[in-house]
This record gives sequence, C-alpha cells and structure tokens, in this order.
Amino acid sequence: MVSPGSRAKSRPAVILFSGGLDSTTLASIALEEGYQLHALTFRYGQRHEREVSAARDLSRELGFRSHRVVEIDLAAFGGSALTDAGAPVPKGRSEAQISAGHIPETYVPARNTIFLAYALAWCEVLGASDIFLGVNVLDYSGYPDCRPEYLRAFERMAALATRAGVEGRKVRIHAPLINLTKAKIIRRGLELRVDYSRTWSCYDPTAEGGPCGACDSCILREKGFREAGLPDPLLSATRR
Amino acid sequence: MVSPGSRAKSRPAVILFSGGLDSTTLASIALEEGYQLHALTFRYGQRHEREVSAARDLSRELGFRSHRVVEIDLAAFGGSALTDAGAPVPKGRSEAQISAGHIPETYVPARNTIFLAYALAWCEVLGASDIFLGVNVLDYSGYPDCRPEYLRAFERMAALATRAGVEGRKVRIHAPLINLTKAKIIRRGLELRVDYSRTWSCYDPTAEGGPCGACDSCILREKGFREAGLPDPLLSATRR
Repeated sequence: MVSPGSRAKSRPAVILFSGGLDSTTLASIALEEGYQLHALTFRYGQRHEREVSAARDLSRELGFRSHRVVEIDLAAFGGSALTDAGAPVPKGRSEAQISAGHIPETYVPARNTIFLAYALAWCEVLGASDIFLGVNVLDYSGYPDCRPEYLRAFERMAALATRAGVEGRKVRIHAPLINLTKAKIIRRGLELRVDYSRTWSCYDPTAEGGPCGACDSCILREKGFREAGLPDPLLSATRR
Repeated sequence: MVSPGSRAKSRPAVILFSGGLDSTTLASIALEEGYQLHALTFRYGQRHEREVSAARDLSRELGFRSHRVVEIDLAAFGGSALTDAGAPVPKGRSEAQISAGHIPETYVPARNTIFLAYALAWCEVLGASDIFLGVNVLDYSGYPDCRPEYLRAFERMAALATRAGVEGRKVRIHAPLINLTKAKIIRRGLELRVDYSRTWSCYDPTAEGGPCGACDSCILREKGFREAGLPDPLLSATRR
C-alpha cells in the first residue's frame, strides 16, 4: 500500500474509516495526496464487529497518525436493518434492485450526518479543516446523504457551527469516490497498491467469519471485481 | 407544570432535554403548543450524571411520550472543559466575561451539530418533523452553534440528508428561547408553572450534591433569578 507522508504536503485530515473496500481506497488516495490521517471508525448496532477489527488492523498498516473507535447508539432509535437487531439484512437482491434509486432497508437514518458531526468535532480539536468520506452515489443512489448537494449543505452548516468557521477556517469534505463505479474504485486502489484481501464489506458475516455473499454490500463488491475483470482476493483468503 | 396534551394539536416532536432550566422551560412551551414530546438526553464526558438523573425524573413528571438517554463519546476527542476530565471547569467569572462574545472553555466542539444529528435520526424513525432546542444567544454569545443562522443552515442540510427530506417533509428546529434573557425564560416558565426546584444547571456539583455556585452556568442562573426578582427554589431545596 501507499506509504504515509510520501508527498511534501502534510496537513492533518479526519477520515471516516470503516476498513471496507471504499474507505481503504479513500485512505490510500488521501495518503497519496500527502495528508496526515486521523481515522474515525464507528461501532453501531450489532453487526459490525468484524468490520471494526479490520479497521483497527488496517489503521496500523496504513500508518494513520491516530485512530478512534467511537460507539454510537443508533440502535436506540431503530429504523434500519443495519441497526435493528430484530430486522433481517436483505439478501439476494439483484444489482438493479439495489441501485434502483429507492431508499433501501439498510439506510440508517441520518447516519452520515451523525458521522460527519463527530468528524467535525474532531477537526475542531485537531485544528484540521479536511474530512475524507467514502460515499458513492452510483451504487447506492437511494441514500439521500450520499449526494454531492448534501455534502455541500453540510459544509455550509459546518462553517457556521464551529470556532474554526467563526475564525474563517472552513471545513471541506473530500469525497473522491462519489462518482466512481465500484470497478473504477478497485482499479484506482490497485494502482495505489491497496491490499483488498484485508478489507471487509459484508453486512452479515457467516458463523465461520467469511462474507455472506448475498447482502447488498457483498453483491456490489462482487460486481465491482467482476467488472474490473479481477478476482476478489478476500474470497481466496477466507476460502483458504 | 403544564399537563401534556392540553391542546388539540398533537404532533410528535423530538426535544433535546437536559433537565436544566432552559430545556425544562422549553418542554413546557412545546407541551403548551400541544406537541407530543420524545425527549433525548445525552450523557457525555464525566460531569453530567446529576443532570441526567434530573432529566429522567422530569421526563416522567412532564408526561413525555418517550425518553432516550444516549451516551456520546465526545471525551474521545478532548477539547473542552466539559468533556476533558483533566481540564478544570472555569469558576468565578464575571457575567461580562461569560457573555463577552469570546468562545468559552466550556464550548464543546460541534456539540449542537452532534445533538441535532441524533435528533434528526430519531425524527426520521418517528415520522416527526419538529425538533425543540433550548439554545440561547444572549447569555452564551460565544457559542457559534447557538446562533439562528446556524440553525437555519442545519435545517437546509437536513432537508437534503433524510428520506423525509427527499419526500418533501422538512424538519424544523424550534428555538423559542433563542432571544430571551434568562430572566424572561424564568418568567415564561413560571407562567407555565415550571417547578424550577427540580431543574439542574450546574456544570460541577459539590460533593454534597448541590450546585457549585461558581461555574458559568450557576452564575447565569443566579443572574436570571436576580433579574426576575425571584429566589431560586433549587437553592432553598438543596440547602434544606
């Protein structure tokens, strides 16, 4: 993977980092641009323990300046298959169904707003004015808080919310994956030597600790590798 | 206090509720307007256990439809005397110092953005489109996220962030205390029969469980009662 600090520019930035395919590619892009990364991983609901542990491991390997895992209690409100322990994760949907523009069951209410609010708080403490976020409109067009117009509105709000904003230092949200297909994200990551066998995408791992292969996230990942014309190294790693 | 549901209008609303003087007055205003209240209290940092227990008690007495206490981990980032266990709460400052327009040490980075983001998530699940927030610009002019222009920017962001927004239902933030002096808040609350002996304001309670009398919040509360020409019933209650 890209070695940290390989460029002269060395500004601190907060990255929302799940340890998945998208945010690991995102981290490599930000490191390539020379940012010092402070990574923020959220633990929410019941389903993401495997993801959090991938994030911890990758944080060390990628040379982030710091890493915080913050527990957030979205399950208190319910309202999503990803946070409500009683609701099943949708399985076996077609790519067309996933990308059809309706809001999927895995939509977590106001999730990116909560995530970005914490990132904004940390920026304020670090004196950082850059946030990296791995959102993507193509694969998940049904998520309202993945759209560019949402991100610009968050920036405008942030400029009024903080000490930094009052002092004229505005926070910018970088979302370089926003218009990329999964295949393009993977190709970009491989150029940056991302080791995708270490990234985790599945919403609902099997008892043996492998990806389920049937949730929306697994299906989109599989499609991405297929369209990139490459095997998913995670599958070879977990099948070994 | 005002009995719940005393008016015909009966729409659900989320209220950010600390159990303090301001948010208890705010709750009474919202109940008087006929809203069904779903209260959200945050536990953060080390210093607010007494406040959380006041909020729980008052939630029952005021007849809220539901009450959630959400743990948020602002201490992970540091940056404020209210969340950083190592930093002392400022004591004995003059009213002029507190209100001078500089950003005080008790400013918690992006606090209201995080609070409102959770409220927005809960609105989305409840199907509510009203949030009540007890912010005030007069006493705490140094907090950037207490200003009306900040609240309007949050509303614009929220309209793009959520399923409800996509479907045309916009969330409105009600901040009826925003331009009131503490004395006016107290007078309005007394008209609504708020029992201020049950409300809690202090940032740093004494070992005996009373208010310290010297933190910014105690000083502003004392000033409010003095200017309203009334004794603070909490002080008689805790001195008993």
